[in-house]
Amino acid sequence: MNLTPGETLRTIRGTKPLVHQITNYVVMNETANATLALGALPVMAHAIEEVEEMVSLASALVLNIGTLSGPWVESMLRAGKAASARGIPVVLDPVGAGATRFRTETALRLLDVVDVTVLRGNAGEVASLVGVEAEVRGVESIGTGESAAELARAAASRFQCVASVTGPVDQVSDGEASVAVANGHELLATVSGTGCMSSALTGCFLAAKPDEPLAAAAEALVAFGVAGEDAAEGTRGPGSFHVGLYDALAALDPKTLDGRARVER
Amino acid sequence: MNLTPGETLRTIRGTKPLVHQITNYVVMNETANATLALGALPVMAHAIEEVEEMVSLASALVLNIGTLSGPWVESMLRAGKAASARGIPVVLDPVGAGATRFRTETALRLLDVVDVTVLRGNAGEVASLVGVEAEVRGVESIGTGESAAELARAAASRFQCVASVTGPVDQVSDGEASVAVANGHELLATVSGTGCMSSALTGCFLAAKPDEPLAAAAEALVAFGVAGEDAAEGTRGPGSFHVGLYDALAALDPKTLDGRARVER
Amino acid sequence: MNLTPGETLRTIRGTKPLVHQITNYVVMNETANATLALGALPVMAHAIEEVEEMVSLASALVLNIGTLSGPWVESMLRAGKAASARGIPVVLDPVGAGATRFRTETALRLLDVVDVTVLRGNAGEVASLVGVEAEVRGVESIGTGESAAELARAAASRFQCVASVTGPVDQVSDGEASVAVANGHELLATVSGTGCMSSALTGCFLAAKPDEPLAAAAEALVAFGVAGEDAAEGTRGPGSFHVGLYDALAALDPKTLDGRARVER
Repeated sequence: MNLTPGETLRTIRGTKPLVHQITNYVVMNETANATLALGALPVMAHAIEEVEEMVSLASALVLNIGTLSGPWVESMLRAGKAASARGIPVVLDPVGAGATRFRTETALRLLDVVDVTVLRGNAGEVASLVGVEAEVRGVESIGTGESAAELARAAASRFQCVASVTGPVDQVSDGEASVAVANGHELLATVSGTGCMSSALTGCFLAAKPDEPLAAAAEALVAFGVAGEDAAEGTRGPGSFHVGLYDALAALDPKTLDGRARVER
Repeated sequence: MNLTPGETLRTIRGTKPLVHQITNYVVMNETANATLALGALPVMAHAIEEVEEMVSLASALVLNIGTLSGPWVESMLRAGKAASARGIPVVLDPVGAGATRFRTETALRLLDVVDVTVLRGNAGEVASLVGVEAEVRGVESIGTGESAAELARAAASRFQCVASVTGPVDQVSDGEASVAVANGHELLATVSGTGCMSSALTGCFLAAKPDEPLAAAAEALVAFGVAGEDAAEGTRGPGSFHVGLYDALAALDPKTLDGRARVER
Repeated sequence: MNLTPGETLRTIRGTKPLVHQITNYVVMNETANATLALGALPVMAHAIEEVEEMVSLASALVLNIGTLSGPWVESMLRAGKAASARGIPVVLDPVGAGATRFRTETALRLLDVVDVTVLRGNAGEVASLVGVEAEVRGVESIGTGESAAELARAAASRFQCVASVTGPVDQVSDGEASVAVANGHELLATVSGTGCMSSALTGCFLAAKPDEPLAAAAEALVAFGVAGEDAAEGTRGPGSFHVGLYDALAALDPKTLDGRARVER
């Protein structure tokens, strides 16, 4: 595995891949703006009448169940299947899995029916999906019975995908190889939807590096983490940090990004 | 009644109560981030399949009809009934009541079916619900035939709840005791959704002080008002004020909050 | 045609017209706040039960198909017809027309059934609607076979409305007279939803100047462009520019606005 976040970022900015997102109401503006700030093009479309056509134009699909409902699940299934059929990479963010049966079951159904490339969630969500004891409060992960590294490996094996478990140190695994990403800043936990943003950026990196999903998922977390570190400088709290995050994503420098990666294999 | 906003804020930050919000599309990100900045945990969930399960995990429920539609009303009714059955406090924000029949009737139906703990609205909205002449333009209150203090008392008596009528000076009443809260800043009126944020924060304070809803509702307005005052300093307009509001909520100091309260009983 | 953006802005601030918006989830907060920062009152309402009643209270209606679905299309049709019947000006923003059949067909259906006053879109979207070859990627316009000025004229003639085609230089036409607006800043393209904001502001200007839609549409773009120029000063990237945009809209000075207009007829 070759981690080259700077080069992939350069590709994203050069090709401006379209990233189709079917995501939750809370963060739609946030993930669209994070995608745009990084250098890719976001498109939000959830109508059953158009999801298959829209995803066929995209280079990646991001499914996020943060405010799901029946019709949206149906659209996610359709878009996901269409993406799978065309070999378009799919990111699944199982927001709140473990909190309610509806969320857990929907996430598992999507993992079953769709060829999910990267499962990106917090430890509690991923633990719920692999059946490990976890404490989830709403959409927050409080604790699990297993280490995040173990969870990532287990989820990757179970669902035959890359699992990207974010937290103080992120753990990414394809079931065999694993990467720990230590970039980031604690202020990221003070803004709603930063997890969702990391899923959107994972979609951007996958779009530019579709054949290496483990590397793409880890690189996305490096880039987002570095942006978080930059945004934290001189910030006055969660509001100004949130604003600074977009500035920092747009200012990410492909030339220095590799050197700032704090990864361990 | 014992007003101790600082102590309640300390409880919120220490226990991080989960506040379930079924709210409008315009402000979802805003109320989630205000909740998080204060120190509680927001969760947005509106699907009929999960609202009862989700609310059972929460310490307060906030219902906001700002962009309602048939299915959402049904979900609010279900979540509200489940909360009532379990003794979980409920805040109702009747956004735009008085502007259309659908909004007025939905708010009245929720007040009828759900054991609403605090009704938080502007003067025009609350006046519409108690049947007092009011001028409402869209979701803005222009004027009413009665003083806000009278309205709060009348609404509290009529609906057997605490009524929290916000405006230049907020009026909170349980039908007998009343509190006027003068904290706040005129810039709050220049940002969309600050009323909704105050409802979300009312949910946070109720979660931490469920047995004293009048005090909790007043304390929430003190905290939000003080944050507004802090955010206004050095601001350049509604955009930077909006950002500063989250910074100020996160920076609220439990030690000084009581002393900054501008309340009258 | 008399272009007096300063005077129209003064009217907006003096009368605070209600602008009813049925728009997409991504930008609801953004367009509400832009409307409010300019000095008008936004109201978001999409329920079939209330759109006709709500639009009857409004001075302008803005329809935006950015995240459309079946029920929302139905609501847009109803609200649009009610507005037409009452002579209330309607802005249509055909977000993503050309990207999927559903979007193109919905935009054409709205243009057919509703008396659209101003069609505000990017070159790719408008080209798709008039049947000119265009490259659209998601909701971004990449290129078209014709100049924006030609497109605006053609669309205005074809749909019997004012066409407002935004881009590096905006082109506004009623099919006969045309105006080019060169105000603006390239940072506007780095924030999601600035096109949608310009549609919302077009609604505000139409509300204040309903009898001169060509002038109103051009003035809205002058005002928004000048705000973009102001917001760009001292900005650090798309996040802080986005925030500065609301500050700049609120700070727009009616006295200097005319002098800053960069228009050509």
